[in-house]
Amino acid sequence: MLGYVLGVGKTRFGPSSHAMPRLAHEAIWAALADSGLAITDIKAFVVANFLGGPNESQLHLNSVVAGLFPGHRIPGWRVEAACASGGVALHQALAMLGTYDPVLVVGVERLSGPPGGVLTHNIGMAGDVGLDQAAGLTFPASYALVAQRHMERYGTTTADFDAVSLKNHHNARMNPLAHFHHKTVTQADIDAGPTVAAPLRLFDCCPVSDGAAAAVISACPRGVRSIAVLGSAVSTDVISLAQRAEHTTFPAASDAAAEAYRQAGVGPGEVDMAEVHDCFTIAELVAIEDLGLAKPGEAAALTQSGATALGGSIPVNASGGLKAGGHAIGATGVGQVYELVRQLRGEAGERQVASPRIGVSHNVGGVGGTCAVHILGRRS
Amino acid sequence: MLGYVLGVGKTRFGPSSHAMPRLAHEAIWAALADSGLAITDIKAFVVANFLGGPNESQLHLNSVVAGLFPGHRIPGWRVEAACASGGVALHQALAMLGTYDPVLVVGVERLSGPPGGVLTHNIGMAGDVGLDQAAGLTFPASYALVAQRHMERYGTTTADFDAVSLKNHHNARMNPLAHFHHKTVTQADIDAGPTVAAPLRLFDCCPVSDGAAAAVISACPRGVRSIAVLGSAVSTDVISLAQRAEHTTFPAASDAAAEAYRQAGVGPGEVDMAEVHDCFTIAELVAIEDLGLAKPGEAAALTQSGATALGGSIPVNASGGLKAGGHAIGATGVGQVYELVRQLRGEAGERQVASPRIGVSHNVGGVGGTCAVHILGRRS
Repeated sequence: MLGYVLGVGKTRFGPSSHAMPRLAHEAIWAALADSGLAITDIKAFVVANFLGGPNESQLHLNSVVAGLFPGHRIPGWRVEAACASGGVALHQALAMLGTYDPVLVVGVERLSGPPGGVLTHNIGMAGDVGLDQAAGLTFPASYALVAQRHMERYGTTTADFDAVSLKNHHNARMNPLAHFHHKTVTQADIDAGPTVAAPLRLFDCCPVSDGAAAAVISACPRGVRSIAVLGSAVSTDVISLAQRAEHTTFPAASDAAAEAYRQAGVGPGEVDMAEVHDCFTIAELVAIEDLGLAKPGEAAALTQSGATALGGSIPVNASGGLKAGGHAIGATGVGQVYELVRQLRGEAGERQVASPRIGVSHNVGGVGGTCAVHILGRRS
Repeated sequence: MLGYVLGVGKTRFGPSSHAMPRLAHEAIWAALADSGLAITDIKAFVVANFLGGPNESQLHLNSVVAGLFPGHRIPGWRVEAACASGGVALHQALAMLGTYDPVLVVGVERLSGPPGGVLTHNIGMAGDVGLDQAAGLTFPASYALVAQRHMERYGTTTADFDAVSLKNHHNARMNPLAHFHHKTVTQADIDAGPTVAAPLRLFDCCPVSDGAAAAVISACPRGVRSIAVLGSAVSTDVISLAQRAEHTTFPAASDAAAEAYRQAGVGPGEVDMAEVHDCFTIAELVAIEDLGLAKPGEAAALTQSGATALGGSIPVNASGGLKAGGHAIGATGVGQVYELVRQLRGEAGERQVASPRIGVSHNVGGVGGTCAVHILGRRS
């Protein structure tokens, strides 16, 4: 046992008029209330954020967040690992429970500020500026390469991508905190969507969201609502696609998954649900394979079989995922664990998975440059 | 004992034509060589960096740095706490030695890219954008307020600031890796300097430097050249000066110092040398007081007595400090520990302090929003 999640909190992911401190405040105090602790009980905190500097001209976010609890001066810092910032922050908190306990983790992001072109440039900072970006590889273009190669190698089709999108949009309709909670998406909507980077079309891409998510982590449980962390692993790979031998799998993800399973003493077959990093529909298929929930090349068939839907044998992205639940970058990895905790407790309402005992989260930075995997388990 | 510094490496701080990965490479491989370890021995790494996004359009620096050792996929991330990023990264490494050992820490920064106005805006991201920056408080202006208040309260004079500047420039002449190693600075030079933000003049301000510094941290020493870490503490305060009751001391610094002394079981009187965060000359005086090396208001007299000079009773910034040694922001806190390690080993050449046994480093983010304090000791 690495530790426990004592409490979680989350804002809605989606466009917001709130500044970062207010978003963080909402998630932090929800997590504290959920854990039964006061802010003065917290011994250290980690802020996960990706684009505070380029988007909001605000760095040094640990000190900004400290302004929410003046007088309670504790160790704190910001961690950034692109879109994996949140998962990495959770991992850090767990890795230092011997030094600080309990630890507060908060992920926060605002993406709705800058105009589209600026935002595309800024998000591109998660990839290699010298090699990939210079060659025109924006993020949709990078994942389009992954999709093209997956199609070529395994016969994956755009209909498989559509199945991911439809499933995740369906799930988001049952998640009041999802970016697209309000929106019904049909195959006709998908077919009407413009191409972003072939073969990826509009509904293959996640939205850019504002939002925050928080969790309180401790080595000791506090009552039956605490959820055990059975495995926590991070792996880092080279950033440029040009430096990788293979594009249909992310070695950082398969490495992190193997290490997390080893720690937890469970295999993929024992996982009851997964929240994975579907920034693009193809990324969900790659994630399913990297987590060992399907063999390489078989995630599409698993998806088409209905197994990854709510009610299937291994529900994936019950929250709606990044695709429809939203992607508030620095908050996303923490938001995935929010969903697992709520599900494992049986608190997920309309989208509740039937009695899950073990859940896995999978949070990717860049195009597989960093991956954080967490395995959570309900206490018997 | 929290752990040991097995090895350190550092580039020159100063203008460089090298990109961040090359700067990081130079420092990392120097630290590895100094430690006697290979990169494949390293179990996790932390990258400290402040302005990679706004200055260089490159975030996700753990994945960039991973490109320096392809195939060795290990946990890694970037930490950012403004100018305290380096000290905080060292603290993180120490706090998780129970999980990963050894850990590589590398701080890297490029500041010589953007034009001056853009750089001033970007550095301002370390302060409160909504309150302080909106009121015109650039960093020199913020520290000018600190200086004005210190002068008013304690009778500190600009001659006291000049004494700090002259001392640190003198020391930098003996440090081949210092930004101003080549430059002799006299009182006449200082007097000829323009006012930046009254009472601070040009020679009260540190330069902006490119550079990198690295350290290998472990729970176990490797031979007599390993230096013990006796204390390591971080504290976070509110970011805005408008939220602080007092401006002549930084509570985050005095808190972190008290905790580090407690861990080390030593008091300020037992410290033989200090590397402190003199981003402005006034900051060195505040640091000396926050570290308890002088009582509040008495750092100026201590400095004028010659006690903080090389050969004095408590040499401060033997390296030249930020003022003359240079300030490569994300690397600075690691660079301070580089200096302490070299000094405690007796490897500091011309600027060697006479047989130091205990050294303290003091690394500040923003205008006291974050502070990291480390206490290092020579093994008997």
